[in-house]
Amino acid sequence: MQVIDRYFEDFAVGEIRRTLGRTVTEADVVLHAGQSGDFFPHHMDERWCVEEAGLGGRIAHGTLIIAIAVGMTAGDVNPQAMSYGYDRIRFIKPVLIGDTITVTAQITEVTDHPRRPELGRVDELVTVTNQRGDTVLSLVHLYVVTKRGSE
Amino acid sequence: MQVIDRYFEDFAVGEIRRTLGRTVTEADVVLHAGQSGDFFPHHMDERWCVEEAGLGGRIAHGTLIIAIAVGMTAGDVNPQAMSYGYDRIRFIKPVLIGDTITVTAQITEVTDHPRRPELGRVDELVTVTNQRGDTVLSLVHLYVVTKRGSE
Amino acid sequence: MQVIDRYFEDFAVGEIRRTLGRTVTEADVVLHAGQSGDFFPHHMDERWCVEEAGLGGRIAHGTLIIAIAVGMTAGDVNPQAMSYGYDRIRFIKPVLIGDTITVTAQITEVTDHPRRPELGRVDELVTVTNQRGDTVLSLVHLYVVTKRGSE
Amino acid sequence: MQVIDRYFEDFAVGEIRRTLGRTVTEADVVLHAGQSGDFFPHHMDERWCVEEAGLGGRIAHGTLIIAIAVGMTAGDVNPQAMSYGYDRIRFIKPVLIGDTITVTAQITEVTDHPRRPELGRVDELVTVTNQRGDTVLSLVHLYVVTKRGSE
Amino acid sequence: MQVIDRYFEDFAVGEIRRTLGRTVTEADVVLHAGQSGDFFPHHMDERWCVEEAGLGGRIAHGTLIIAIAVGMTAGDVNPQAMSYGYDRIRFIKPVLIGDTITVTAQITEVTDHPRRPELGRVDELVTVTNQRGDTVLSLVHLYVVTKRGSE
Amino acid sequence: MQVIDRYFEDFAVGEIRRTLGRTVTEADVVLHAGQSGDFFPHHMDERWCVEEAGLGGRIAHGTLIIAIAVGMTAGDVNPQAMSYGYDRIRFIKPVLIGDTITVTAQITEVTDHPRRPELGRVDELVTVTNQRGDTVLSLVHLYVVTKRGSE
Repeated sequence: MQVIDRYFEDFAVGEIRRTLGRTVTEADVVLHAGQSGDFFPHHMDERWCVEEAGLGGRIAHGTLIIAIAVGMTAGDVNPQAMSYGYDRIRFIKPVLIGDTITVTAQITEVTDHPRRPELGRVDELVTVTNQRGDTVLSLVHLYVVTKRGSE
Repeated sequence: MQVIDRYFEDFAVGEIRRTLGRTVTEADVVLHAGQSGDFFPHHMDERWCVEEAGLGGRIAHGTLIIAIAVGMTAGDVNPQAMSYGYDRIRFIKPVLIGDTITVTAQITEVTDHPRRPELGRVDELVTVTNQRGDTVLSLVHLYVVTKRGSE
Repeated sequence: MQVIDRYFEDFAVGEIRRTLGRTVTEADVVLHAGQSGDFFPHHMDERWCVEEAGLGGRIAHGTLIIAIAVGMTAGDVNPQAMSYGYDRIRFIKPVLIGDTITVTAQITEVTDHPRRPELGRVDELVTVTNQRGDTVLSLVHLYVVTKRGSE
Repeated sequence: MQVIDRYFEDFAVGEIRRTLGRTVTEADVVLHAGQSGDFFPHHMDERWCVEEAGLGGRIAHGTLIIAIAVGMTAGDVNPQAMSYGYDRIRFIKPVLIGDTITVTAQITEVTDHPRRPELGRVDELVTVTNQRGDTVLSLVHLYVVTKRGSE
Repeated sequence: MQVIDRYFEDFAVGEIRRTLGRTVTEADVVLHAGQSGDFFPHHMDERWCVEEAGLGGRIAHGTLIIAIAVGMTAGDVNPQAMSYGYDRIRFIKPVLIGDTITVTAQITEVTDHPRRPELGRVDELVTVTNQRGDTVLSLVHLYVVTKRGSE
Repeated sequence: MQVIDRYFEDFAVGEIRRTLGRTVTEADVVLHAGQSGDFFPHHMDERWCVEEAGLGGRIAHGTLIIAIAVGMTAGDVNPQAMSYGYDRIRFIKPVLIGDTITVTAQITEVTDHPRRPELGRVDELVTVTNQRGDTVLSLVHLYVVTKRGSE
């Protein structure tokens, strides 16, 4: 992890980065239940998931996959950018314990800030894929970024 | 935690629920760094936060507050509803270690599903407030819910 | 989790509630060893459990099952009740990693407090069952509850 | 941690051992909430504890103190003894985050097993004390122990 | 855990102690990634370990095995000894998730302190073995110990 | 985290990198006690540390600081390098809960492998500094690195 200044002008639509993989473990799900307080049987009751719900096993919390996915794209610290939210988070397929996910992040839009001329907005589409190549989650990560020469 | 069937017809715009409070602790932030892999100094370096970044202390990860807030609204299990995503997640103010947050969830929209007549869509606005009454995060939680008599 | 006032008069012998299931995981046992400081081989050494002790696998700490069982019965917050202890905790069968437990809590006794007329005592029998229907742990949870009109 | 055989005849009423101290931390309470699923405001909401409940701060879960206390007395592995339960667990005073506890364990009763002549029963009174010398929790730990020459 | 004074004169070359076993779990590796911030695929990506790296599974962090091994040899508290470092830490074979390790600690050298006559130095060779008898890690633990009559 | 091939020829004596800071928290120490099984009062008993041992507070486990320091220097994945151990680990000053550490890693030696001509050895001096600029820990991280054109 390094501190690297990247200004608004340094982001281009289509720019893409792809992470290494990470296996979503039982420990991750147990810790996330403990952190979020969500002990729904979908995440915690192996017997119910398999025998009653037909889920094929316990599934990871949506908020766990968001946390891991966004965390995996947190590479270098950019003092010129600030994350202000996400749009269109969609849980497309369940992630089961034992699945291995990778994340792709692609710049999809760069626009001027509507009210502040020294800033721009950068949208990054984050796509999470499992080991079979299925997309399991997507979201748009929203940044405000300083324009060069304005700080 | 109980299993309670609530159908599409049981949700009404304006319906509101409010959680008890939860203090966001240093342990939460450390565990979330460990879960997400995001060790940015904003969350991990007290000295930098106070002396260089002027943040007043270490701030919680956005994804931690999402996980806690959504978890706090996960009350009973409703077999008729499925969460399929979130819209318009916005980080409005930072949450510092030691802040105590409460969550309000209000039904803001109920609509027919565009293609499947047996289902409806329910939007729930989730608002997170700190101990000073400031809104720190908001998001819209999206559900698909079965209509009565259709299952 | 909601705050709901229930007074002494609201509890009746025979009243019963039953939780959903929860799978006791390896992560739970590892975390509980770390919390309690109890690293006995019964919980931590798979080889010893299987090859030497004939246990069929690592078994959960008794205090872990108590914590989970009591936690699973902690539904709503009742400002009129205070837990003051447990009686007759018995470890009836071991819980192995991977077992799924459910908990039943039944009111078994309601009596006046011996010295304080504004209070009563409520005993709740907590019974933990595994996925085969075997009782693995039982205890009596002891509450002091305010009588109606006395606060 | 060592394996040391101690038989029924090796336990004498009055025998006492005393542990070192351990500070009960915020991290312990957060982890125990996550393990037990008990997120009651008594443990998690600093503002409520201080401003509304008059508790002086967040208090540790009873099951956390049981787990730590029993864990602190788990010294050597004794293949001749088996823990089968606890009696008379009493929460005498609250343990607040930051309190430092020590544990005393004293043999209070040794008796023949009512039905199995090769076994005896040993009761150990476990007393937990805070840094001010107040007793905060007590319980009786129940063991079945093999008699010498009977295995 | 007890406090037991052992002076320099009480350590003899060749003295050996051997711990019980401990299974290195997936939860240990996940927690250690979270603690160290090291999310290398060798530890976190099951698919990559098996299909690309030919490792046979995820391997434990070296620093995890050091922490467990040294922790397993931390028996009683000796106020007369202070650990000042380790020499020659060598990762000899990988430890995979599910392996069970035991630790042997042998005094290999006792010498006077070069500058302080009231102290001596004790070297302890710590050897970690897996369930197949392979040595997986070794290190020399370095202590400074008070001589009798000098404190 | 990216995969970047760096060969033996790419390392030069004197090359240096410096991490951002990380505050060592109470949660880190509690989690490390739980992971290592080392519950010595130096790490766990605030009262003893301050009132009896004169340590000024609880101090972090040496193995925790090793794990964090090595983890902080684990930047990109280099398939051409393999860590085979550490030399001369020295605990120079205690790290107290709340201290903020940074890590410097400097290449101090590059040599041919004594027996395998296709490999070289790279030594990296890892130095951990607290917020007052004191060196608290140092170690030499040992790598074997492939020479260019030999794989």
